[in-house]
Amino acid sequence: MTTFEQIAPQLEHQAIEVPSWAYGNSGTRFKVFGSPGTPRSVEEKIADAATVNRFTGLAPKVALHIPWDKVEDYSSLTDYAREQGVEIGTINSNTFQDDDYKLGGLTHHDPAIRQKAVDHHFECIDIMHATGSQDLKIWLADGSNYPGQADIRARQDWLNESLQKIYDRLGDDQRLVLEYKIFEPAFYHMDVPDWGTALVQVQSLGEKAMVCLDTGHHAPSTNIEFIVAQLLRVGKLGSFDFNSRFYADDDLIVGSADPFQLFRILFEVIRGGGYEPDSGVAFMLDQCHNIEKKIPGQIRSVLNVQEMTARALLVDRDALSQAQQAGDVLGAHEVFMDAFYTDVRADLAAWRESRGLPGNPMRAYAESGYQEKIEAERVGGTQMSW
Amino acid sequence: MTTFEQIAPQLEHQAIEVPSWAYGNSGTRFKVFGSPGTPRSVEEKIADAATVNRFTGLAPKVALHIPWDKVEDYSSLTDYAREQGVEIGTINSNTFQDDDYKLGGLTHHDPAIRQKAVDHHFECIDIMHATGSQDLKIWLADGSNYPGQADIRARQDWLNESLQKIYDRLGDDQRLVLEYKIFEPAFYHMDVPDWGTALVQVQSLGEKAMVCLDTGHHAPSTNIEFIVAQLLRVGKLGSFDFNSRFYADDDLIVGSADPFQLFRILFEVIRGGGYEPDSGVAFMLDQCHNIEKKIPGQIRSVLNVQEMTARALLVDRDALSQAQQAGDVLGAHEVFMDAFYTDVRADLAAWRESRGLPGNPMRAYAESGYQEKIEAERVGGTQMSW
Amino acid sequence: MTTFEQIAPQLEHQAIEVPSWAYGNSGTRFKVFGSPGTPRSVEEKIADAATVNRFTGLAPKVALHIPWDKVEDYSSLTDYAREQGVEIGTINSNTFQDDDYKLGGLTHHDPAIRQKAVDHHFECIDIMHATGSQDLKIWLADGSNYPGQADIRARQDWLNESLQKIYDRLGDDQRLVLEYKIFEPAFYHMDVPDWGTALVQVQSLGEKAMVCLDTGHHAPSTNIEFIVAQLLRVGKLGSFDFNSRFYADDDLIVGSADPFQLFRILFEVIRGGGYEPDSGVAFMLDQCHNIEKKIPGQIRSVLNVQEMTARALLVDRDALSQAQQAGDVLGAHEVFMDAFYTDVRADLAAWRESRGLPGNPMRAYAESGYQEKIEAERVGGTQMSW
Amino acid sequence: MTTFEQIAPQLEHQAIEVPSWAYGNSGTRFKVFGSPGTPRSVEEKIADAATVNRFTGLAPKVALHIPWDKVEDYSSLTDYAREQGVEIGTINSNTFQDDDYKLGGLTHHDPAIRQKAVDHHFECIDIMHATGSQDLKIWLADGSNYPGQADIRARQDWLNESLQKIYDRLGDDQRLVLEYKIFEPAFYHMDVPDWGTALVQVQSLGEKAMVCLDTGHHAPSTNIEFIVAQLLRVGKLGSFDFNSRFYADDDLIVGSADPFQLFRILFEVIRGGGYEPDSGVAFMLDQCHNIEKKIPGQIRSVLNVQEMTARALLVDRDALSQAQQAGDVLGAHEVFMDAFYTDVRADLAAWRESRGLPGNPMRAYAESGYQEKIEAERVGGTQMSW
Repeated sequence: MTTFEQIAPQLEHQAIEVPSWAYGNSGTRFKVFGSPGTPRSVEEKIADAATVNRFTGLAPKVALHIPWDKVEDYSSLTDYAREQGVEIGTINSNTFQDDDYKLGGLTHHDPAIRQKAVDHHFECIDIMHATGSQDLKIWLADGSNYPGQADIRARQDWLNESLQKIYDRLGDDQRLVLEYKIFEPAFYHMDVPDWGTALVQVQSLGEKAMVCLDTGHHAPSTNIEFIVAQLLRVGKLGSFDFNSRFYADDDLIVGSADPFQLFRILFEVIRGGGYEPDSGVAFMLDQCHNIEKKIPGQIRSVLNVQEMTARALLVDRDALSQAQQAGDVLGAHEVFMDAFYTDVRADLAAWRESRGLPGNPMRAYAESGYQEKIEAERVGGTQMSW
Repeated sequence: MTTFEQIAPQLEHQAIEVPSWAYGNSGTRFKVFGSPGTPRSVEEKIADAATVNRFTGLAPKVALHIPWDKVEDYSSLTDYAREQGVEIGTINSNTFQDDDYKLGGLTHHDPAIRQKAVDHHFECIDIMHATGSQDLKIWLADGSNYPGQADIRARQDWLNESLQKIYDRLGDDQRLVLEYKIFEPAFYHMDVPDWGTALVQVQSLGEKAMVCLDTGHHAPSTNIEFIVAQLLRVGKLGSFDFNSRFYADDDLIVGSADPFQLFRILFEVIRGGGYEPDSGVAFMLDQCHNIEKKIPGQIRSVLNVQEMTARALLVDRDALSQAQQAGDVLGAHEVFMDAFYTDVRADLAAWRESRGLPGNPMRAYAESGYQEKIEAERVGGTQMSW
Repeated sequence: MTTFEQIAPQLEHQAIEVPSWAYGNSGTRFKVFGSPGTPRSVEEKIADAATVNRFTGLAPKVALHIPWDKVEDYSSLTDYAREQGVEIGTINSNTFQDDDYKLGGLTHHDPAIRQKAVDHHFECIDIMHATGSQDLKIWLADGSNYPGQADIRARQDWLNESLQKIYDRLGDDQRLVLEYKIFEPAFYHMDVPDWGTALVQVQSLGEKAMVCLDTGHHAPSTNIEFIVAQLLRVGKLGSFDFNSRFYADDDLIVGSADPFQLFRILFEVIRGGGYEPDSGVAFMLDQCHNIEKKIPGQIRSVLNVQEMTARALLVDRDALSQAQQAGDVLGAHEVFMDAFYTDVRADLAAWRESRGLPGNPMRAYAESGYQEKIEAERVGGTQMSW
Repeated sequence: MTTFEQIAPQLEHQAIEVPSWAYGNSGTRFKVFGSPGTPRSVEEKIADAATVNRFTGLAPKVALHIPWDKVEDYSSLTDYAREQGVEIGTINSNTFQDDDYKLGGLTHHDPAIRQKAVDHHFECIDIMHATGSQDLKIWLADGSNYPGQADIRARQDWLNESLQKIYDRLGDDQRLVLEYKIFEPAFYHMDVPDWGTALVQVQSLGEKAMVCLDTGHHAPSTNIEFIVAQLLRVGKLGSFDFNSRFYADDDLIVGSADPFQLFRILFEVIRGGGYEPDSGVAFMLDQCHNIEKKIPGQIRSVLNVQEMTARALLVDRDALSQAQQAGDVLGAHEVFMDAFYTDVRADLAAWRESRGLPGNPMRAYAESGYQEKIEAERVGGTQMSW
C-alpha cells in the first residue's frame, strides 16, 4: 500500500493555472447573471486569482484572454501580478467576438480576414513577450452551421497556412498550443473538432506546437484518459483545460460531474510522465461559475484537482502491474479503486497546515472577509464579462 | 402508388406558426452577431413574419414571447398583425431572464419567487385574452448545475403547485402547453427534462394541459417519432417546436441536419391523426438564425416542413400495411423510402403557383426588394435580440 | 455530521437480488468465453448465488429466467434454494430467443404470436405460484430495425392488450414489473424505450403493475436519478436492475463505470422513501461477467451497492436542506460530496464482522477454496449460457 | 445545374466490395436467427455475393474473413470466384474468437499471445498471396472492460510492435488497413478507438499502412465526413466499411438510418479525390442482416451507395464554390441540398438497362427464382454464422 506520506512530496510542485475570465460574469445564451463583487478591471481579476493562490498555494499563475484583458501597459500589469503573488500565464487569443469572424477567423474563406486573425495572434505574441508568458493558446470557434455552407477541406489548408504564420513568429521559449472542440459555437462542423485534427495540424508546424485537451470538448462516451495517454506517448500534450460537464461544454467545476473520470485522467497523466516537473504539461482551469460564487468556485476547483491527484498518486503501481500482468481483471480493478476510494481530505488538511496554508481553504476564505470586502468596494463601474 | 394530385388537397390546411424572436438577433453564449435590417420593435418583427406568410402561404400566425414582445396596447398590436395578414398565435412565457430566477422560477425553493413566476403567467394569460391567443406555452429553464444543489423531488411538487395555479386561471378555450428539454441552461438537472415528466405534470392538471415537443430537446439517439406516436396515442400532443440539431439544442433550420428524421416525425404525425385540421396539434418553428439571413431562413424552414409533409403524405399506406403484416422487412422499408426519395419540389412549385403564390418563394423573396428595403430603413434604434 | 454508527442500523435490511444468469457464461455478439467452474444446471447457479449471500449477507434471493431456468419440479427447486440459504426471487420472462419472436412477441403483428408470448407469461405466473415469487419482470426485446418496417403506433396498442391479459392472470400478491430500454436488440425502435412509455403502459393496467429501471438502458447523458425521483413520486418504481456502462448496455459491475452516479441514484432512492423496508422497491443486479470471474464479480457488485448506500445514508440531510433553502449552491454541493468522499470501507468491515460475516468478503471468498472446488468438480456437461 | 447525363460516366467505375459474412447468419448477443437458404460453405457465400454483382454490376469483389472462410485450397477458391464472376478482395483477420484472446491479441500483456496474433496475420498474408488480395484489414477487438484492468499506455507500444512485424511481412503491392472503433466488444477502453489513434499507428509503419473508416464506429454526434476529408487530406484513407446505425454499431443497411449523412460522406469523398479510380480508397460493406433477407439486403445496400453517389456527383460544385466564397450561407446550403433532393432513381434505372442490367435489381432478384432455389437446395449441413 502506498501511503500519504510517501506521495506528499510530489504534491509540492503542483501548480494549476487559473483563467482571468473565471472571475468575471459568465452565463448561457439565455442569460448572464451578475453578482456582487465581480471585478471591473483586469487588476481586480488578478487580485481575485491571487486570493485563490493565497488560500490554496495551488494557483501561482493567471491566464489572460485577449482582448478581454487588454491593458495599456503590460509591464505594469506583470508587476502588479507579482505584487499580488502570482505570475501571468498563458495568453489566450480570441477570434470569435469581432463581427468579421462571423464565418471564421484563421479558416475564413477570405484571405483578408484570415490575415486579420493572424495579426491578432501576432499581437498576442507581443503581449507574451511583455508579460513573460510562454504559451499561446489557440481555441478556434471556427466552423459552419449548415452542410454545404463551407469547404471543410479547403479550410484545413487555410488553417494550416495561418497557423504556420503564427508559429513562425514565436520566440524560442514560446509554444503554440492548439485546442480542439467537437461543437459550439459552430454546430455542423468545427474546424478543429478532435485531438486527431489538432495533432495533424501541430505536427506539421514543429516542436513548439502542442495540443491542448479541454475535458469538456468531446463527444459523449469518449474515453478522455486514453487521449491523454496517447498524446503523452507521442509527446504532444501541451496543456489541459480542466472543467466538467454532464451534456455539452458545461464548464462546471472540475470533478463535480464525474469525479472518477478526473481520477482516471490524472492517473494516466502520472503514468505517462505528464506530472513530472519538467514534462511541459500545463494544468489549467477553464470554467464558468454561472450561478455559484466565483472565488470559492475556483478554490473548490483547484482543491478538487489536488485531492484527486493525491488519490491518483496513491495507486499502488507495483500491485497494479502485477495484477495486470497476471490477467487478474477484478484484482487490478480493485487496486485501482482502492486509491480512488481513499479519503485523503484529512491528510491533505494537515499537510496544508504544515506548509502554512489553511487546512480548509473553503472555510478560511469564507471567514476571511474578502468576499464581503469586494462586494462592498466594487460598486459602480462595469462588471467584467464575456 | 400515391400521387401528388391525390395528396395536394391535404396541403391546403397546413399552417406553421412562426416565432417573433426568429426575426431578432440571436447567437451563442460566445457572441450574438447583429445584421442589417433586424427589427427594432414588435411591429417590425410582425411585419417580417407576415412577409414569410405572403411568400409562402404557410405561416398565418406569429407567436409572441413575453416580456420580449410586451407592448402597451395589445388590441392595437392585434389589429396591426391582421392588417399585415397574420394573427397573434401562442404566447410564450419567460422565467429565465430576471435575476430572481437564477435558481429557478416555478420550481424555486422560495415560495415568493414561485409566486412571482406564477404571476408572470397570469400576465401572459391576460395578454392571451387581449390578443385572442389560445395557447400558453411554458418552457422552463429551471434546474440545477451541481449535484446536491437542489431538492429534485421537492421541486416536482412545487412545479405541480405552480402549474395548477396557472392552469386554474385559463379561459375555457385556452390551453397550457408544457415543453420539456433535457439540458441547457441548467446542466445537472432540468426540472422538466423529458416527455414523461411533462406528461405526468399535465395529466395531473386536466384536459386543457398538453405537452410541447421541441425536436432539439432530446438526448442523442432518441427516437423522436416514437414519442410523437405515443403522445398522440394518449391524446396529449399539444404542439411542436420545430428546428434541427447536430449536437445539442442547436436551433438550426428544421430539416437541415437530418431530413429523414423530419420525414419520420411527420409520417407519425399523419399516422396518428395529428395532421387532421381538428387534431389540436399546433405546428410551430422555434429556431435561431445566428449567421444566416433571418427572413429567408424562416421561408426555407416552412418550405422544408411543407416539402417533407408532402413526402410523408405520399407514403402508400396500404402497401406499407400489407408489407408490415406480411413481415416483409425490406419491402415495408422500401415503400417508406420510396416516398422519402420522391422529389416533390416541381409539383409543389406548380401547386403554389396555382394558388397565386410564387413557385419559388426563396427566389421571389430575394427578388422582391424587401430585404434591401428593411436594411435601408431600419437604421438607428436598438435591434431586437434575446 | 452523520456518523457511521447512526446509519449502520439501516444497513441491516439491505437485500440485493442476484440473477441466476450472472453465474452462467455470457459475452458479446462476437464471442462468449467459457470459464472453468461455470454451472451446468440451475441448481449449480443457485449454489453459487447462495455462496455470494454466505460471504456478504446481502443477497438473500436469486432471480430466475424462464426458459433458461426451467425445471421439472419447482417445489424441489425452491426447497433446494432454501437449503442453500436463499429464496427464489423475481421470475424473468423471455420472448426473444424463439424463432417466432424474430419480429416481436407481445407486440407482434400476428395475433397468434402475441398469444404465444402471452401464454409464455402465463407459464411464468404458474412458476411464480410454485416458487413463491412475487414479481414477474417483463423486458421486451421487441422493436424494429428499419424505418417503415413496423407500425410503431399499432404495436403500442397490441402491447397494451397483451399486458392486460397477463396482468389479469396475476395473483393478489403478485406484481408485473415492466422494464424499458432505449436500444438493443432492436436498433431503430424499441417498443418500450423509455420510462414514460413503461409508465403509460403500467398506469393503464392497475396498481399491481410497476416500472423496472435498469441503470444501463438510457440514452447518453440521461439523468437517471431524476427518473428514480419521479417514479417514486408517482408511486410506480417497482424495481432496479443494477449494472453500469460506458457506452451502451454494457452490463458491467454496478458502480464500476461511474461510482458517483450510483451514489446519486441511491441518494434519491433514500430521499424518496424507496429504501424503506416496506417501499416495495426491489433491488436487483442484472450484469454479465464476460471476462472476469463470476462469483467474485457478484460479490464485488453487492458490496459496491452496500458501500454506496452507506455513503448515501451519510448525507447530512438537515445541513443539505438548510444550504438548499439558503440558495447556497457550493455549500449544498459540498454537503453532498462530503458523504460521497467518506471512506466507509473500514467501518463496514468492522460492522460485517460484528454480524458474523467476513470483513473482506472478496478475500474471504478467494481463500475459501470454493472457486477451486467448483473448477475441479464441474467438469463435463454443458456450461449454462445465454 | 449538373445533369445526370454529365455524371453518368463517373458511375461506370464504381465498385463496392461485399463481405462474405453478410450472407451467413448474424445477430445480437441475445439471439442469432437462422434463415432458409443460408450458405453452408465459403463457396455458397461467394455464389451469393456473385449474385449481388450479377443483378447490380456494382460488387465485383468479395472480402473474406479468416478463419471463417478458411479453405484447403485458395487457388481453387479463387478460380471458383472468377467462374462466378467475382474476385477475392480484402482479407480480414480475426483475433477475437479464440479463447487466448480473451484479454487481447496484438495488444495482450503476454508476448506469447501477441506473437500468436501476429502469426495469424502472417497466415492472412499468405492467403493474400494465394488469392491475389491486396488489402489486409485489421480490426481489433482488443481493449478492457474495467478501469485499472489494463495498462492502456503499454498496450499502444505493444500494438505498435505487433503491427510493425505484420507490416514488414507485406508484399510490395499489399497494404495494411487499420480499422478503429469506439466501443464493443470492449466497454471501458478500446486499443484503437478513434481515427487519431489509427493514424498515429499507421503513420509510424510506412506508406503501405492506411486507415479504415467504418461508418458505425464513432461516438454519437461525430461528424464523419470531416474525418473523411481529413484522412484524404493526409493521404491515409485506405478503405470504408459502410453500414448505418441509430445508436451503437448496429451494422444496418448503409444509408437506411441517415441517408443525408451518407450523401455528405460521399460528397467529401468526391471533393477530396477519393472517388477517382486511382485513389486507392476501397469501398466496402460491413453489415449484418439480422432479420431481413441477406441477398436482397446486400442488393439494397450497393444500390443505396450508387444512388447516393449519383446525388453527390450532381452537386453543382461551381455554384457551391461561388456561394461559399460569397459567404452566402443559405445559398450554399441550397445548392448542396438541391442535389440531395434530386430523385435519381428513374435515371439510374434507365442507365442500368442501357448497360444490360436490370433497371430494378430488387424486383429482378425477387422474380429470378434464385432465393427459392437456394432455400430449396441448401438443406442440411451447418449454416455459416459468426
